[in-house]
Amino acid sequence: MCTNVLGAFVLLWILVWFYRDNLEITKVSEKHVFVTGCDSGFGHLLCKRLDKRGFRVLAGCLTEKGADDLKRATGPFLKTCILDVTSTASIQKALEWTKKEVGDKGLWGLVNNAGRSLPMGPSEWMKIEDFESTLKVNMTGVIEMTMNFFPLVKKARGRVVNVASVLGRVAANGGGYCISKFAVESFSDCLRDIQNFGVNVCIIEPGFFKTQRGNFIVSGTN
Amino acid sequence: MCTNVLGAFVLLWILVWFYRDNLEITKVSEKHVFVTGCDSGFGHLLCKRLDKRGFRVLAGCLTEKGADDLKRATGPFLKTCILDVTSTASIQKALEWTKKEVGDKGLWGLVNNAGRSLPMGPSEWMKIEDFESTLKVNMTGVIEMTMNFFPLVKKARGRVVNVASVLGRVAANGGGYCISKFAVESFSDCLRDIQNFGVNVCIIEPGFFKTQRGNFIVSGTN
Repeated sequence: MCTNVLGAFVLLWILVWFYRDNLEITKVSEKHVFVTGCDSGFGHLLCKRLDKRGFRVLAGCLTEKGADDLKRATGPFLKTCILDVTSTASIQKALEWTKKEVGDKGLWGLVNNAGRSLPMGPSEWMKIEDFESTLKVNMTGVIEMTMNFFPLVKKARGRVVNVASVLGRVAANGGGYCISKFAVESFSDCLRDIQNFGVNVCIIEPGFFKTQRGNFIVSGTN
Repeated sequence: MCTNVLGAFVLLWILVWFYRDNLEITKVSEKHVFVTGCDSGFGHLLCKRLDKRGFRVLAGCLTEKGADDLKRATGPFLKTCILDVTSTASIQKALEWTKKEVGDKGLWGLVNNAGRSLPMGPSEWMKIEDFESTLKVNMTGVIEMTMNFFPLVKKARGRVVNVASVLGRVAANGGGYCISKFAVESFSDCLRDIQNFGVNVCIIEPGFFKTQRGNFIVSGTN
């Protein structure tokens, strides 16, 4: 009886071991990941983490300063480009640059992280422009980036990772933020029909994180 | 024992009766309701129903033909205006007209019904313009109408009724429709902070309805 239990345990242990090995991502130095909004917050932290793991990181930064800060904090393989996700021309430029960088391999990962949370407050205080300014980055930016970069991701049978928020599930504040994050949830779920082409779609729903010195930023996507 | 039960039943019956009486909307001929998208579908049907009940209906129609059709089907108190919810100028014009119509009483109800469902299909077939064209009507239109008309609704301590869809809960199709309806759900929920001013916010989530001859229209908001 005791031998049987021990045998079953060893078998289970071996199976778990193989399963874990199977999950490990190999040949990371051949895998390109494009991340948007890397000047600060989650985007900045993710780039540093991926770079440390050996991935080929292509970091879209809104400002020259943000790009310089990131380059100083990372290794020689991480590359940056200036990207404003509210500008079609800027997205097109970043796409052409990415095509050259990834070559025939395609893009293994696209992380739509760029976002803004403010203005946010009671509905009556909001102007129509306050909704528009947030929706333009958090929603339209994500849609436009994904639709443009999708052929590259499909080529690598990669994944699209959209950073939504816990406020994409719970509508708590007036302004464009919750609306945009609900929209990202819906867009990402709908997008899952592309899983037929071997492309995965993931949604990240952070809560409240302190990502910058002295600042509590909702979902850290600023 | 039997008398006690009978007494309790009569008391309950009286209470229910008072409660039902309390729910009835009185002085409907002094109450103005603005409905968008009244050319056909739910908007058209709602206007006819409200007009029959005696409300003062202000119907926003996209086309002259839609307005004429509605006028022919309703009484002398229903009034129409031409309204394109994607145009800020058109919304402003409708607002000025509504201010004159409602006078000091304010607007008892605003029904954001205007919407479009197509184009809809697999994500890969969609162009960025396909998302934008739907979001402009179903999401931006609802936000802009509500924010502009809100002072009038507040004056009457009225209600905002936003027509979302069951697809505002379940993301099932590529394209802008589900995204816009998720956005309407979020916008409406956030808007409930205005309930402090005595203004109610309601969300309608229709499923699939046949609202026009020979057409099955998703949520009937076309």
